[in-house]
Formats: sequence, structure tokens, C-alpha cells
Amino acid sequence: MEKIATSNLKLGIICGGQLGKMLIQEASKWDIITYTLDADENCPAAGISSVFVKGSNFDYDAVYNFGKLVDILTFEIEHVNVEALKKLKSEGLNIVPDPHVLELIQDKGLQKCFYRDNGIPTASFDLFGCKKDIFNAINENRVKFPFVQKLRKGGFDGRGVAVINNLGEVDKLLEGPSLIEEKVVIEKEIAIIAARNQKGETKCFPAVEMVFNEHANLVERLVCPSSLTPELNSEAEALASKLIESLDMAGLLAVEFFVDVNGQLIVNESAPRPHNSGHHTIESVTTSQYEQHIRAILNLPLGSTSLISPSVLINLLGEPFFDGPVFYEGFSECLAIDGVKIHLYGKKIARPYRKMGHVTVISQSLESANKKADKVMSLLKVKSWKN
Amino acid sequence: MEKIATSNLKLGIICGGQLGKMLIQEASKWDIITYTLDADENCPAAGISSVFVKGSNFDYDAVYNFGKLVDILTFEIEHVNVEALKKLKSEGLNIVPDPHVLELIQDKGLQKCFYRDNGIPTASFDLFGCKKDIFNAINENRVKFPFVQKLRKGGFDGRGVAVINNLGEVDKLLEGPSLIEEKVVIEKEIAIIAARNQKGETKCFPAVEMVFNEHANLVERLVCPSSLTPELNSEAEALASKLIESLDMAGLLAVEFFVDVNGQLIVNESAPRPHNSGHHTIESVTTSQYEQHIRAILNLPLGSTSLISPSVLINLLGEPFFDGPVFYEGFSECLAIDGVKIHLYGKKIARPYRKMGHVTVISQSLESANKKADKVMSLLKVKSWKN
Repeated sequence: MEKIATSNLKLGIICGGQLGKMLIQEASKWDIITYTLDADENCPAAGISSVFVKGSNFDYDAVYNFGKLVDILTFEIEHVNVEALKKLKSEGLNIVPDPHVLELIQDKGLQKCFYRDNGIPTASFDLFGCKKDIFNAINENRVKFPFVQKLRKGGFDGRGVAVINNLGEVDKLLEGPSLIEEKVVIEKEIAIIAARNQKGETKCFPAVEMVFNEHANLVERLVCPSSLTPELNSEAEALASKLIESLDMAGLLAVEFFVDVNGQLIVNESAPRPHNSGHHTIESVTTSQYEQHIRAILNLPLGSTSLISPSVLINLLGEPFFDGPVFYEGFSECLAIDGVKIHLYGKKIARPYRKMGHVTVISQSLESANKKADKVMSLLKVKSWKN
Repeated sequence: MEKIATSNLKLGIICGGQLGKMLIQEASKWDIITYTLDADENCPAAGISSVFVKGSNFDYDAVYNFGKLVDILTFEIEHVNVEALKKLKSEGLNIVPDPHVLELIQDKGLQKCFYRDNGIPTASFDLFGCKKDIFNAINENRVKFPFVQKLRKGGFDGRGVAVINNLGEVDKLLEGPSLIEEKVVIEKEIAIIAARNQKGETKCFPAVEMVFNEHANLVERLVCPSSLTPELNSEAEALASKLIESLDMAGLLAVEFFVDVNGQLIVNESAPRPHNSGHHTIESVTTSQYEQHIRAILNLPLGSTSLISPSVLINLLGEPFFDGPVFYEGFSECLAIDGVKIHLYGKKIARPYRKMGHVTVISQSLESANKKADKVMSLLKVKSWKN
């Protein structure tokens, strides 16, 4: 008998940030008992998780002991102690996605090699052990400017990445094992979230187009549907499906693409979990990415990914110069605009560019959703009431 | 400064059934700190409420002490100790809807008098102090068969109501202060949920049409949009708005109407809270009834009530003859049908006709939603794995 059908399924989630929180909001609809592991007892998910366990995702014992409490284990972040996951798996725990996927994705070098070896188009690259090796390669003309350096491990939200346009910028190079890749001349950036269950059923969410805040190197606005041509859209969906199948994984895989100036699709990177580029699905797609993640990891039939309504998503980032207890300026005013759906993650301290929430604007046309989003961006500011 | 905009608002909810649970799911999106009072620590809302307080909604001290913990107090049930609420209000607590509304609604006699005195059409009625008074009235030919008897206080989900078709059925009469009203010959039953904030802004959700399970006297299927003519629909919305304004209340008011065989609208009863007839709004209306309740009680602008998609809602009732730990037969199979949204409330014990969850089916047409709902009803059964 399926445990979920008896209201007795214990789902463990490693880390309790906003992704974990929104996953729990969906899980509670099916009366799944949620366990959350996080080092911070004030993390967004702590308040609504059935059980909160304090502990670090990096710590072997914390992850191992947490896994012993649950029937099935998943994660909302790539940075998890994989050795503990492997040990739990060897003892029979159902971990989805599988630890081997996490291990691959944690290392951007392995990730790039996997793309290359499986016919997934990606920017050409080389691996380096340390900064000095890159200097040597530059001196020997084995590296062409401009290029992008990415640390193989530990990067997140734009950290661990350096863009080196010319010799004068080499002091920006980061220390540690890294890859460098040619700097793609980007026409647009899109993301597609693929879902797959253990039966091998695969579905893609509609592509979203990303607009960046250049100061913070964070996505600021995500638009769905994207402006991809039907042909490129089909190609991107086929690539996302191919990638999740090649990884032989169950769960969600968020695949970020560049479209270069020649109209070529290039996979930038991917993440085996719910993703910032899928928040809008809560309101604008028949099945949200969070519900789909639960369906996928529990080997249930995947839900429809048909678009209900065009949407524009804005990340609510902390305003520059504000650092302290959060205050959401313009909150009421934004609620007066039809189709504005505000999500506050529950981080009590605002910091410059910290992701504090998001707003999804749904409307009958993308044009009107974008206009409403402009208004929201001009009104809603994440500040602090103590400076 | 608004407390909600600082992530520091403590919202108290009296009772933690499914309505409280779904209210908390919405509240968590705005990082509202939720406190739940319920006599049962395994109630549906307990697991996701920020703070759970064990205590009875009927108990003066429990309600009073609970009110002292929060910034604003609301309820998901009419049966609350009003004396405690009045005391809290006199000490300055913000209670929404106001205790005077609850006091009126708790007493179906007062409720009916209010309709009559405020020009709201309702079935003609008389008040009685006890069963004996009704017998006397019958003997004196002051009462005509068939009629409906409703206990003035304590009824819920069809309990506290007796339908007396002829003299041979008078042994079904209930003891206690009651009203009797003429039995309306019902053509259809509809419900409209009105919302109002303290600024006086009022909005109605689209009318839903109710189909009953005759065995259990519980709503089994709710269809939106209803089959009301545009004229009757406008009239029903105008009546719901008039009623919430006459009550001078903030919050939600669910108004249940009969349409009689002459096409006349008759208000049956109303409830000042989220309502079973509004569950579908989570998926099928721009603003859900739960978000709207929060907007209304916090005096925020009301959200759009435009219909996104036709919907059919099914209440998941415990199957007859099953009493024990719950098992949801057909759960996976139903998830394979596009547009099927399952909500399990988290009641661990199934009992015959107990409301255990609901399913909202959204589809592009009502016809196709109804067909999918037929399939869900044939597949999904609330049983128990121990008999």
C-alpha cells in the first residue's frame, strides 16, 4: 500500500529556504508529513514544516541522522553532504533525486563533461586545478579573452563566477579548481524545468525568459511564455528532456539555456530541484513545480504543465543600503493591482540584494502583465525599518 | 507602520479544521505568524500553524487567553465563546469579523429575523421555545406541513435540522429552541461568498451551484460557474453584498440561496468565514477565498474575483462502513487525470460521511470538468485499512 495514500508518509527535505517552504505548502495539501533539516531555526520553512531538525546540510552526521527519520529524502539545494546520502542509500533509504545526480551537479566541471559526453550543446571549456594554471595557460596563449571562470564547487546565485574580458581583469580570477569557458554573446536567456518519475514519464514546463539585474547578477524578471520561436522552443524542450533522461534521474531538473547571437541553444547549467525560474507555476500553470516535484519523487503520474495564464515574475531583492529587520514598502498598494500574487519568504533580516520574496503577475496578455510588473517594481521595495 | 509589512503580524485563528489549515497555507505566503486554537492537537491545521495552542473554542478561558497572544483574531467556525470575544474586544483586541456578527449568526432565529428586518428574502418562519410549543402549534393548525425545523443553536453540516413532511413524521422533531420555516420547493441551490474590508470595499466571488449527497445531507459536488441566468446572478450578488453591508462586517460572508420553482431567490443561511463552497477558488479564481479573507480582515485592498477556469468540486467523504485509519483508494489514478487537484485535510481517522478532503477539477469547459469529476468519483474512495 502506498504510504502517501495513508497520510503517513514522512518526507525529508534538506534545507528550509524558500524552495523548501513552497514545497511544504504543496506537500501539506496531500497531508504529507514534512521534516526539514536546516542550520537556521528561523529559516523560511521552519514555521510550516511538520517537524524541524536543526543541523547543517554540509555535516555528515546531521544529514545521516536526519535521513534515518524519514521514508523518502529530497533536497532544495545542491550543497548536501553526498557521502551521508550514499551511506543512507546503501542502507535502503529512498533518496530522490539519486545522490549520483547530486554529486555530478555539485561539480560544475563534471557537469560540463556530462553535457559534452551526452551531446548536450554547451560552451567550450577547459578544467583547471588552480588560479596559477590559468595564468600559465593565458601566458601560453591557450586561453582566449573574453572568458568566464566558474569555480567547480560551491557557487550559488552568481557567486563563484568571474567574467574576465581582457588581460587587465585577471586579478578578478578566483582561487580553486575551476573551469573556464568561452564567453557566449548572449541574445537571450531562458530556462526550462523538466520533470521525470521513476517510471520514466517526462514532462517539461513552458520555457521562461530571464531578465537580469546587472548590479546583483540575479534574475530580476522572468517572463512566460518566452519569445522563443516555436522551433527553438521545441528544440529546448527536447534538450531538457534528453538531459533529464541521460541523467536517469527522477525529480525536477531546471535547465538554463543561453540563446547566442547565431540563434543557437547552449546549456549553461542545470539544477536537480525546484528552481527560481519556476515560481510562477504556482499561479500560472495547471501543476506547480512544487506539486510536480512531489509527484516525480513519489513516482506518481506527472501533472499537466499547460499554461493557464501569461505571467511575469519579479524577485523581491533587498534594496541597496538597507540591512536590518525587514519592511516591505508598498505592500498594500501592490495588492490593489489585479492579478498581483505576493510571496514573502519569511526572512526577517533584509540585506542588499538578498532574495526576500517574489511577485507573480498574471494577466490575460504578457503586455498587460509586464505593465503591472513595472508598477509593482516602482512601488514595492524591500527596506529595513532600522538602518 | 503596518505590522503585516514587517513580517511580525500574529494572526490568531479559532479552530484548526480544514478551513483553518487552508487559511494558514495562504497566510504563510505573506509570512504571517499564525496561532491556532483547537481542542485536538491532531487537527488539520496543527502541523502547519506557526504556534498551536490546545484549548476549546467553547471555553471562555481558553478563548480569552488565546486572544491575549495575538494581534488580530479570526475564526473558521461559528461556534466560539462570544463572551470571551466581547471581553477581548473591550480590552482593545482587533477581532474580525466582529463578535456581534458571530452572535447573530450563531442563533439561526436572530439570523432569520435579521434577514426579515433588512429586506433579505428568506422562507417565512416562526420561533419556538421547545418541541412542545411546536406540537401545540400543530394541534392549533398554526403550522402547515411540510416544514423544516432548525435548532437555533449548534447545528452544523446538516445536523440540527429536521424535515417534517406530515403528521406521521413529528417524532423526528428536535428538542430545544428552534425555528420552523416553510419547506421551499427547491429548483437549485447556490452559494455566493461576499468579502468586505473595513473601508467598506465589497466584492463577490462567482456563484457556485451545489449538488447534494442525499444520504449524508452534505454537499457532494459544487459547480462554477452556476446555471443561474445573468439576471438572477446579478440579483444574488446584489443580495449577498446587501447582506454583508447590512451586517456592517469585515471578512467573508458565505450566503447560501435556494432558487424556488418560481425562480425566486431565497436566502437559506449564511456563515461569516471561509466556506466549503469556496474551496475551488484556490485553483479557479484569481484570488482564493482564503487570501481574500486575509485581505478583508487586515483591511487590505480586496483581490480580483475573476474566474480563471470552470471548476467542479467534490467533497471527499468517508465511505459508509469504514471507520479507522484512513486510506485513499485511487489516489494515484486520479492524479493521472489532467486538472485534478486533490486536497487531503489530514484527518487520520476515516468515518462514514466525514469530510476528509476535496478535489477540484479545472478544465476548459464545465462539460469536460464534469466528466473528469465523474471519473474521480468512481475512482477515489475514502476507506480505512483496518476495519
